[in-house]
Amino acid sequence: MSRRRYKHSEKKVGASPGTLIYVGQDIDYKTKIRRIDYNEANYTVEDIRRLASCSRPDATSDRVSWLDVDGIHEPRVVERIGQQYKLHPLLLEDVMNSQQKPKVEEYDGSYLFATLKMLYFKPASEELDSEHLSFVLGKNYLISFQEERRADLFQPVLDRIQASAGKTRRNGSDYLLYALMDLVVDHYFVVLDTIGEKLEVLEDSIIRQKAGQDTLTHLYTLKRELTLMRKAVWPVREMLSRLLLEESELIRPTTIPFLRDLYDHVVQVLDSIDSYRELATGLLDVYLSTLSNRMNSVMKTLTIFSAIFMPLTFIVGVYGMNFDNMPELHTRNGYFVVLGIMAVLTVLMIIYFRRRRWF
Amino acid sequence: MSRRRYKHSEKKVGASPGTLIYVGQDIDYKTKIRRIDYNEANYTVEDIRRLASCSRPDATSDRVSWLDVDGIHEPRVVERIGQQYKLHPLLLEDVMNSQQKPKVEEYDGSYLFATLKMLYFKPASEELDSEHLSFVLGKNYLISFQEERRADLFQPVLDRIQASAGKTRRNGSDYLLYALMDLVVDHYFVVLDTIGEKLEVLEDSIIRQKAGQDTLTHLYTLKRELTLMRKAVWPVREMLSRLLLEESELIRPTTIPFLRDLYDHVVQVLDSIDSYRELATGLLDVYLSTLSNRMNSVMKTLTIFSAIFMPLTFIVGVYGMNFDNMPELHTRNGYFVVLGIMAVLTVLMIIYFRRRRWF
Amino acid sequence: MSRRRYKHSEKKVGASPGTLIYVGQDIDYKTKIRRIDYNEANYTVEDIRRLASCSRPDATSDRVSWLDVDGIHEPRVVERIGQQYKLHPLLLEDVMNSQQKPKVEEYDGSYLFATLKMLYFKPASEELDSEHLSFVLGKNYLISFQEERRADLFQPVLDRIQASAGKTRRNGSDYLLYALMDLVVDHYFVVLDTIGEKLEVLEDSIIRQKAGQDTLTHLYTLKRELTLMRKAVWPVREMLSRLLLEESELIRPTTIPFLRDLYDHVVQVLDSIDSYRELATGLLDVYLSTLSNRMNSVMKTLTIFSAIFMPLTFIVGVYGMNFDNMPELHTRNGYFVVLGIMAVLTVLMIIYFRRRRWF
Amino acid sequence: MSRRRYKHSEKKVGASPGTLIYVGQDIDYKTKIRRIDYNEANYTVEDIRRLASCSRPDATSDRVSWLDVDGIHEPRVVERIGQQYKLHPLLLEDVMNSQQKPKVEEYDGSYLFATLKMLYFKPASEELDSEHLSFVLGKNYLISFQEERRADLFQPVLDRIQASAGKTRRNGSDYLLYALMDLVVDHYFVVLDTIGEKLEVLEDSIIRQKAGQDTLTHLYTLKRELTLMRKAVWPVREMLSRLLLEESELIRPTTIPFLRDLYDHVVQVLDSIDSYRELATGLLDVYLSTLSNRMNSVMKTLTIFSAIFMPLTFIVGVYGMNFDNMPELHTRNGYFVVLGIMAVLTVLMIIYFRRRRWF
Amino acid sequence: MSRRRYKHSEKKVGASPGTLIYVGQDIDYKTKIRRIDYNEANYTVEDIRRLASCSRPDATSDRVSWLDVDGIHEPRVVERIGQQYKLHPLLLEDVMNSQQKPKVEEYDGSYLFATLKMLYFKPASEELDSEHLSFVLGKNYLISFQEERRADLFQPVLDRIQASAGKTRRNGSDYLLYALMDLVVDHYFVVLDTIGEKLEVLEDSIIRQKAGQDTLTHLYTLKRELTLMRKAVWPVREMLSRLLLEESELIRPTTIPFLRDLYDHVVQVLDSIDSYRELATGLLDVYLSTLSNRMNSVMKTLTIFSAIFMPLTFIVGVYGMNFDNMPELHTRNGYFVVLGIMAVLTVLMIIYFRRRRWF
Repeated sequence: MSRRRYKHSEKKVGASPGTLIYVGQDIDYKTKIRRIDYNEANYTVEDIRRLASCSRPDATSDRVSWLDVDGIHEPRVVERIGQQYKLHPLLLEDVMNSQQKPKVEEYDGSYLFATLKMLYFKPASEELDSEHLSFVLGKNYLISFQEERRADLFQPVLDRIQASAGKTRRNGSDYLLYALMDLVVDHYFVVLDTIGEKLEVLEDSIIRQKAGQDTLTHLYTLKRELTLMRKAVWPVREMLSRLLLEESELIRPTTIPFLRDLYDHVVQVLDSIDSYRELATGLLDVYLSTLSNRMNSVMKTLTIFSAIFMPLTFIVGVYGMNFDNMPELHTRNGYFVVLGIMAVLTVLMIIYFRRRRWF
Repeated sequence: MSRRRYKHSEKKVGASPGTLIYVGQDIDYKTKIRRIDYNEANYTVEDIRRLASCSRPDATSDRVSWLDVDGIHEPRVVERIGQQYKLHPLLLEDVMNSQQKPKVEEYDGSYLFATLKMLYFKPASEELDSEHLSFVLGKNYLISFQEERRADLFQPVLDRIQASAGKTRRNGSDYLLYALMDLVVDHYFVVLDTIGEKLEVLEDSIIRQKAGQDTLTHLYTLKRELTLMRKAVWPVREMLSRLLLEESELIRPTTIPFLRDLYDHVVQVLDSIDSYRELATGLLDVYLSTLSNRMNSVMKTLTIFSAIFMPLTFIVGVYGMNFDNMPELHTRNGYFVVLGIMAVLTVLMIIYFRRRRWF
Repeated sequence: MSRRRYKHSEKKVGASPGTLIYVGQDIDYKTKIRRIDYNEANYTVEDIRRLASCSRPDATSDRVSWLDVDGIHEPRVVERIGQQYKLHPLLLEDVMNSQQKPKVEEYDGSYLFATLKMLYFKPASEELDSEHLSFVLGKNYLISFQEERRADLFQPVLDRIQASAGKTRRNGSDYLLYALMDLVVDHYFVVLDTIGEKLEVLEDSIIRQKAGQDTLTHLYTLKRELTLMRKAVWPVREMLSRLLLEESELIRPTTIPFLRDLYDHVVQVLDSIDSYRELATGLLDVYLSTLSNRMNSVMKTLTIFSAIFMPLTFIVGVYGMNFDNMPELHTRNGYFVVLGIMAVLTVLMIIYFRRRRWF
Repeated sequence: MSRRRYKHSEKKVGASPGTLIYVGQDIDYKTKIRRIDYNEANYTVEDIRRLASCSRPDATSDRVSWLDVDGIHEPRVVERIGQQYKLHPLLLEDVMNSQQKPKVEEYDGSYLFATLKMLYFKPASEELDSEHLSFVLGKNYLISFQEERRADLFQPVLDRIQASAGKTRRNGSDYLLYALMDLVVDHYFVVLDTIGEKLEVLEDSIIRQKAGQDTLTHLYTLKRELTLMRKAVWPVREMLSRLLLEESELIRPTTIPFLRDLYDHVVQVLDSIDSYRELATGLLDVYLSTLSNRMNSVMKTLTIFSAIFMPLTFIVGVYGMNFDNMPELHTRNGYFVVLGIMAVLTVLMIIYFRRRRWF
Repeated sequence: MSRRRYKHSEKKVGASPGTLIYVGQDIDYKTKIRRIDYNEANYTVEDIRRLASCSRPDATSDRVSWLDVDGIHEPRVVERIGQQYKLHPLLLEDVMNSQQKPKVEEYDGSYLFATLKMLYFKPASEELDSEHLSFVLGKNYLISFQEERRADLFQPVLDRIQASAGKTRRNGSDYLLYALMDLVVDHYFVVLDTIGEKLEVLEDSIIRQKAGQDTLTHLYTLKRELTLMRKAVWPVREMLSRLLLEESELIRPTTIPFLRDLYDHVVQVLDSIDSYRELATGLLDVYLSTLSNRMNSVMKTLTIFSAIFMPLTFIVGVYGMNFDNMPELHTRNGYFVVLGIMAVLTVLMIIYFRRRRWF
């Protein structure tokens, strides 16, 4: 398990608030920026190489301008974008702080900041990881910040923009924000499915009593994943609920039903997380009682052996004594009588334990 | 246990929102549609074979038109009905998504969408299953969507409509919605009864100490069922509470007391679920302590045997030694004295363990 | 334990709402009805034999008319009373449904319906049982419904009416309702006392370590009783709180302090229930650790015996071997030296276990 | 443990509401009443012997009149005071009911009733006990009721009144009420300290693994005390919060900051109670796992002994057999070879268990 | 573990409210006071040696005056500052009471009092400790009280003031308050990191099954630290939320986003605390089941040894008997046949336990 899991940043203690410091994993590739401009009629996709050219679109433009920033580890880049789009320094701090929890905030009604977590299982280690995503929504633009390009997260939306003048192209930047967040929430379901499958495997192995110490470690890992997931998803619910309640001017009324739908999905994810947690706890109880049952069975085996052989060993010991005067030793059938007695004793013992239903 | 239990859909990731995809079990029969039109004076029941003929009734009609759609797996059918009745695409998405949790939503005051879960024990496997039901309530119409026809779920209401010009016939579409939901909630009580009986059987076997490893698996299954049930019923409470608070124009004042009654029933179901969960947890504790008690008793048996026979075996071992000079061996009554000493020792041991109340 | 405990009714599935079906235990005696009319000046008590004569009193009458209905299992009777007093059908359904949870509801400001549970320990089986009580409060009348006459539940109030022109006689029907509910809540304290005594007995037997498997069953029963009691009393709190908040015209201001007092008592009952639950859980922990401690002590006994006698038995076994060439066997004091060595070994073992504080 | 702990009163069932019955421990001394009158200029302290002389002070008086009633078991006395001060009968009932939970209530804006619990450890038995205190606050008077004089509970306040014309003397009856309640809350901290010390002792004995069955009983007692304390203190928080919110005319604005301070203290007490409960639960876990660890160690000892001596005993048994034809017996060094084999076996066993880190 | 942990003060019982008594650890050094005055243009730092010179700055001054008081154990000093700045006595009491929980309070809109806890691990004992910090915010001044100078807690802010005419210098006293609280919250993250690392070490040792009794004590300590931390941080959240809601005139609108940011950080700390608690509980479960597993394995070892050697020892015992008439003894190959039988028996036993998957 990597050291990183419980890592917050010490770098920032004592730094002036609003200082841009990247908090997260060290990444060595350069930020990639792409701008997609579209309206119902057409669209353009452009890779930005000079930061000077990513300026805020004119407020009167009827095109939606989507700036897709890939990489949040270069303060210089983030700061420059902040200047071009006239963003609040604290907002930029939140963009770069990958520990920032999901939230939404509106700045003077002129733009809206939203941040949430993308969740996925790392392909290599099968560990649950999260990626920090931030969005800045203006009247006719959207900036999306990704911590690290992961298998072209936003590609499906881009594909839809390129495919036809469909719903995404006909609607504004707020619908684009919705579409991107919807993608993220869809991924929550994928993660949930994986966890559900793991839970099922565990359930199987525990109920069929094939569970060992490993099983419990897996159960613990699963619980930790659910805890992590809950921590990431819970504030998204709050964030969407605020978006729905506050009636920002940046969110068009036609987008509201979609956000409400998204809210429903998030609640559904949270419900499933809670159910899974309960089931995991239930499984633990089953497992622990299985252990107790096994112990019982082992102990019974031991006790039965002891209870049968201890008396027998004692009896044969008696007739192994070397006293001069032991009349039984010299009888004709003494040996066979003793063998007989021992056989009877054994049978009685067995009957006794059967009656107590020990085996 | 079937794979399906923890299944969400991956099919939808990246799909455009509002895209109609059926999420649920694969079903191969065709959707059946039936229209029941009635007012106090008379009624008609008609099987719809051409989708074109299931159109929204005229707003001025004084008849209630109930469209009973049986099957939600054919996007084409659901979409067509949506077009005829002018329903929002997201609503149709919710109709087809059998993972959708219970909720109620009003669209522009012109129609109201409600969805909830029917619960039942599968006849074959005795597993608790849920069926996704949706209702669209208009001024003088109601559309009901069932995931899969199950023993004519809505038959009792249809019977009442056909039987006489009773309460259902005298009231509007909102009362019909209530009557159908009431039917669903009545089934919750049936499921609750089954679970209650299972709990009683478990209680019996645990308290009479006849429980084995199976019992715990049953207890776990029961807890899982209660978790599943709670997840299905809890939002119904919220949904009814919203219906009562929001005073939609589609709900006539005369229907309100009935909905309040329904709300009470749902709260009662939830209370029972919570009580059952508590009892199940209590039973687990009893079971685990039974295991400990049994272990104690097994161990005592073992210890008593060991404590009696180990010293005896040692003594007879002593007189089995082959030293030349062992005076006791050559006394006349040595053998009988040793037998006597061992008898006394045994009696003392037994008294000792009796005193410590070990048996 | 009787089958009834977890019984809801299947009879009602599919029945038209408002259909009067008695849900509860089968009872075979006839409903008894009694009317008590009183004002400050005088009172009359009358057994009603013909339903026609139990009509709603004239609204202008200054007398309080109390209709005490004893038995809720005859739909015909309940329905007739409903007609005479012009009561809502759903109200009558709630009167007859002994599973109905406590609630209060006002119908058009003209009458108020309240229902709650009487709790008592069944004389025979010592099992906690509940009786369904309902009240209909009008401006100058009160109808009380009892599930089954139990030792003249309401007698003390009747006695007070008959005794003198005291507080009950001077006040209206709302005070009468209060007086009857106060009686019910007083009984909660009696039940609580019984449970408290049981808890004390359990505490005693567990702390003095006299507890066996029975104790745990008793503890479980006690927890179940507390669960049942909480389920019955919790909604009473809510119901009284609503009565106090909603300022019904049927409740005179002078009665408010009394209801507030009653509310306080109910909260006190709930607090005690919660404390008892906590204590019961604490006792379980003590009990389980007692079991572990006992097991430890049993195992130590076994281990001490084994650790002492196994080496000894081995040693005597050595000198029981039949090798030709075993020099020790032929020494003069070999036997006594071996006995001495074994004695020393035993003492060392005992010292060792003492040091480890095993006994 | 005394029977009293779980005692509610059965005496009251069926009694008319407002009937004065003392509910609590039987006490045989007579009520003592003392009146302290003061203003900034001077003060008088007077023992009241005739009830007639304890009358409500004139509303225009600028002196504060504090009636300190010591004993609540004589209905006649309490009733008479009630008449003189024109108090509501239900208030008097609450004064005498030592089971009454803390609350505050205002009667027509003319006087305010507050009741709470004094907590202390009984000097003799070290058991936590509570005393029922009630206060009636009028414009220029305060009546305080104590269940039983305990070490002059209110003496410090009286001392301050007598000492100098300080804050207490300069302020009104509401400040006096605050000062007395502050005294009670200060005592909560004393009780908390005692419990904290007990917890520390337990922590010590459990973590240093010196804990026995007694420890658990102490832990349980401590938890019960925390439960009792929480039940007594929790409503005080609510009561103070209501006093602060409702802006009674009887509470002067200058007293508000003091009450807010008191509120903070009560919240602090509750926080500490909750922390202690958590710690106690944590300790239980440590203790139970200590038991498991010890058991493990005992079992390992047993198993090591068995695993070493069972094979050895078997081997010597082999050569104790009396077969005619056992060639080894007649070899020269047979005995020594066998002894050597057994020594090697023992060493191997010890190495094996060392490797498995059993000791 | 030090006695202090659960120490509240008994000193205060019966003392007049507002009496200044230092509640906390005994400290023997003198209070140090420093005043920092600054505006955008310049700044002065001055050590105060005469209390008379620390007076409230003129309300019209455009400079921010920060009085940094280091030491709260000298009532005389705190009282004098209170007089010079005209502070409420209860505020001073809170400053000196190191048990006071975090809160914020505004006095007549003229100054605002805030108190919270600084958390750190004591360098020597690695124990989590807290320091009581208080702030008084006026229009153009801030007083900060520290319990004990700890490594120049506020130095980073002073450095920033001295470094350049940056954000801190350009803003008012409210921003200074924010900057200082931000410093404290940053330290929460440092503490959280340390706890996270400890948790990771524990996780490692438990999952790799290297955990012993110590591990549990560490786990308990960790839980206690989390409890302590939660108790210290939870009210900070409430305090900030009140600051944000109440719109004090002392907080400029430009400072609000910074406080909102601080609030987010505190919520993040609380979320992490809760996650850690859950994980710690999960680890305990893993540990306890590891113990059970180990016990199972120990018992199996014992049982296998017993089951193999008890029958063998019995058999050799049989042929060690001294009966005259034991035909087997005199056969030629009797000895070898018996050895063979015993070998077969052993193999069968081993196969049997293999089949049951005991090893």
